[in-house]
Amino acid sequence: MPPTLLDPIRQRYSCRRFAADHAVPPDQLALLLEAGRLAPSAFGLEPWRFVAVDTAHREAVAHACYDQPAVTSAAALVAIVALGAVLDPDSDYVRARFEAEARDGDTAPVCEAYRAFYRADSIAAWAQGQCNFAAAHMLLQAAHMGLDSCPIGGFDADALTIALALPAGETPALLIALGHCSAPAPERLRKPPE
Amino acid sequence: MPPTLLDPIRQRYSCRRFAADHAVPPDQLALLLEAGRLAPSAFGLEPWRFVAVDTAHREAVAHACYDQPAVTSAAALVAIVALGAVLDPDSDYVRARFEAEARDGDTAPVCEAYRAFYRADSIAAWAQGQCNFAAAHMLLQAAHMGLDSCPIGGFDADALTIALALPAGETPALLIALGHCSAPAPERLRKPPE
Repeated sequence: MPPTLLDPIRQRYSCRRFAADHAVPPDQLALLLEAGRLAPSAFGLEPWRFVAVDTAHREAVAHACYDQPAVTSAAALVAIVALGAVLDPDSDYVRARFEAEARDGDTAPVCEAYRAFYRADSIAAWAQGQCNFAAAHMLLQAAHMGLDSCPIGGFDADALTIALALPAGETPALLIALGHCSAPAPERLRKPPE
Repeated sequence: MPPTLLDPIRQRYSCRRFAADHAVPPDQLALLLEAGRLAPSAFGLEPWRFVAVDTAHREAVAHACYDQPAVTSAAALVAIVALGAVLDPDSDYVRARFEAEARDGDTAPVCEAYRAFYRADSIAAWAQGQCNFAAAHMLLQAAHMGLDSCPIGGFDADALTIALALPAGETPALLIALGHCSAPAPERLRKPPE
């Protein structure tokens, strides 16, 4: 391996409009989802679900994103959905994750820590923030494969929830638009190192 | 480049205790901070600051993290700090970021969108979630360099704020512990692909 990961990091940028006629092959989409699946999360809870948006739902999803060009022109769209009700400390989902994480050891310490951390009224926002770990993995994996991308956080959450047919409690965290950008990468802008 | 980024992704895992006598060279630390600096963020706000924890602050930082072994044994610690008061829509910080992002274009649309999004009472949690983009970049860059790591979210936020001498409004989002793990990587646990 080269000494730095900065090649894909430098290649990644937010493409605002994708070129037509560039499909994302299924094997690339599968690698992208796998990169997201392996992302870290607090308490090992993986509080996310990934939805590859199919053709039938594209239009409603784009509308929920105010028909912004990055969405309407994307060759593929992946929604990162934050889990909700299943994050209750007493849920089967949480118990299963903690049992896996404890590797046959005692789950009491992590259960106790999570119970002290958990707040029903802020867990959705927290889970959405955790989804950014998976998103970062996917965006870098896309760049690594030569795919352009754009993370989309600007959407009508209620409309997107309906468009994605999410069950109660789940909320859309981020949409990832993929394809080949119709314009070259602009100059990168960042705060200078401190 | 190889077709997937899955090598560093698969190499990364949360190390719970680091071996002694393995320093992190300054050039590796610099690459790690650069990887974080280039992470994406909503509205291009980069609502973070990175603090390489120096020796004088190590003990207080470890105490704030309940002296967990991943922190006390780490060869190096980087704190990712979420910005606070400067994220007010009328701040000089926000204006400067939007002017950079607009590339001499009109900043009005992003200003308007951000003003509609901004809530003073939830901006800290949001900024902390954005910090996970930078954290994911750093963790993968560490793995790519052969460094083991552990993201630390379990801390007394007030104590860590004091230990890091953060100004009012800034909050610790995540601590990244770095070094060489004292034990081999355990079997990876994840939910199966859907």
